[in-house]
Amino acid sequence: MKELSLLFIGFGVVGRGLAELLLEKAEVLRSRFDLNFKVVGICDLKWGSIANDEGIDLAKALSLVESGRSFDSYDLPARRGLSALEAIRETRSNVVVEVTWTNLENGEPGLTHIREALRLGKHVATTNKGPIALAYRELSKLAESRGVKLKFEGTVLSGTPTFNLTLNCLAALKVNRVRGILNGTTNFILTEMERGVSYHDALKKAQKLGYAEADPTLDVDGWDAAAKACILANVLMDGDVKPRDVERRGIRDMSLSDVLGAVNRGLRVKLLAEVWREGGEVKVRVSPKLIPQSDILAGVSGVLNAITFETDVLGEVTVIGAGAGRRPTGYALLNDLISIGSAL
Amino acid sequence: MKELSLLFIGFGVVGRGLAELLLEKAEVLRSRFDLNFKVVGICDLKWGSIANDEGIDLAKALSLVESGRSFDSYDLPARRGLSALEAIRETRSNVVVEVTWTNLENGEPGLTHIREALRLGKHVATTNKGPIALAYRELSKLAESRGVKLKFEGTVLSGTPTFNLTLNCLAALKVNRVRGILNGTTNFILTEMERGVSYHDALKKAQKLGYAEADPTLDVDGWDAAAKACILANVLMDGDVKPRDVERRGIRDMSLSDVLGAVNRGLRVKLLAEVWREGGEVKVRVSPKLIPQSDILAGVSGVLNAITFETDVLGEVTVIGAGAGRRPTGYALLNDLISIGSAL
Repeated sequence: MKELSLLFIGFGVVGRGLAELLLEKAEVLRSRFDLNFKVVGICDLKWGSIANDEGIDLAKALSLVESGRSFDSYDLPARRGLSALEAIRETRSNVVVEVTWTNLENGEPGLTHIREALRLGKHVATTNKGPIALAYRELSKLAESRGVKLKFEGTVLSGTPTFNLTLNCLAALKVNRVRGILNGTTNFILTEMERGVSYHDALKKAQKLGYAEADPTLDVDGWDAAAKACILANVLMDGDVKPRDVERRGIRDMSLSDVLGAVNRGLRVKLLAEVWREGGEVKVRVSPKLIPQSDILAGVSGVLNAITFETDVLGEVTVIGAGAGRRPTGYALLNDLISIGSAL
Repeated sequence: MKELSLLFIGFGVVGRGLAELLLEKAEVLRSRFDLNFKVVGICDLKWGSIANDEGIDLAKALSLVESGRSFDSYDLPARRGLSALEAIRETRSNVVVEVTWTNLENGEPGLTHIREALRLGKHVATTNKGPIALAYRELSKLAESRGVKLKFEGTVLSGTPTFNLTLNCLAALKVNRVRGILNGTTNFILTEMERGVSYHDALKKAQKLGYAEADPTLDVDGWDAAAKACILANVLMDGDVKPRDVERRGIRDMSLSDVLGAVNRGLRVKLLAEVWREGGEVKVRVSPKLIPQSDILAGVSGVLNAITFETDVLGEVTVIGAGAGRRPTGYALLNDLISIGSAL
């Protein structure tokens, strides 16, 4: 039996999604993957920090936070008050789960957390787009030099297979081009607009349903899609593109008549991310595109996400599924932990 | 460096597709997967049988057959005339590539070939639907008891990730339902009919393009889709369904007015394969269904294939891609060989 000793850096929606799945799938992990786990620490700016190399009671920690109580109410033995970096250094974890917030400016604090974990020879599973979009090349080299895995399935399409798909199923192929609908919020807004709802009302509805933030800039101006497209470009096509280098246009200036006019002509407006090779370079663009209804991506509605990989041998392979959400994103981490476990 | 010693049983279109890809991707196999290969034998009813434990010249064997010449013209040292079973027993192969024709009655001769290879402790990669649809349970137990792998990615959706996807990316999940367009020929015919072409003219066109056989029974009566659906049911949902038990209706009796009438009502006719649980049993049905245009499978046109997996954690995950063809099906085998190599 192999053992994962997990340290959670961040215990927001995604971290708790993983915690819930770990408890739910503990028996499956044992019987199907010969994998045991314990959680040796959880650090979160809001809930506090607990650590114990013998194991934290994950069910208890989860239920505390779900009922709005901080780790002050955790009444079992634990070291308290360790910062994220201290916990990375001082717990006997072999895997760091980095699920702090995404920062597309400089990747912090996640970038420092991941760098330190890898430097110390710990595997990393993350859903944090910032560090992977900004520093994939550096981090993957560091992981390789330390003989550990850096896994980030959930950075793109949440748990819908993307990197584990390409790594395990398309690995001998050359990916020549990638097209995708990588942001669920904007796809939801565009789908609503096709039904005659104005941009502003559709945005309000997305906010009400929890799909969009109060400040929707990252989604509607295409930054989120651009970050994900950079990750695809840099991981799958050996590119070196940063979000700020992406040719990027969002959907903020799309009018209802643009969207309905397209539908009347048998077309759909989609915020497409495109990655391709041109003159020895890998290029990335995010922009609203008119695509025919016969395009498979035209049928991807609402908060669904999709990616089409254009490959040398298989032609186009498309995967469609959830692009966000507590359980799907938690599952991305679970799948990454299974990959890490297979290498222990 | 790990070494695959391959024995080809069958050297038709699919076997030669693999041979071509092995030569094309030899360097990728070495550098990315630490994998060397040699071919120690090829047995084919039409082209003859050559075997040499030191290695057959695969490029030469391939070019002979591509120019219509049998192995009588192979002028390097080789044992000649071994039957398939003799070659399985007498060559020093560690992997048998079984790519003879599909027989949905009793799975032969593929079933005997696969059984014998597994019994002798050899890994098996196959695209042969018969043995897997009819005897998956027996064969997978046999493989497990001998500590070898039985791989069959290409039996469903050719090289478009299906079993390697579920095995590597959805493995901790429960699959509750599967829906798919599993037969390209019938999907091509239905797509043509949506453009106003009659069933008979569409079938003729499919035959002319090489999508349909002279006797199209297996495709148009739903047998091919039923066999693939059985494989999905038995592998992913632990079912025990055989093609003859499937509730099956093909597209032979679809009229142009059925198809065009559906389009006029905003629907599409698709030959859907469905697998679900009911009262402790796994059920399989193949039938033409009216589905709304908003259904992702409605957008899957022409010879494309698709599968939607309904899972407990991720919701619906859909994969769309080639369902047949020399290179896509050859790639399924290549991917299987990479999986086998990782376990050597």
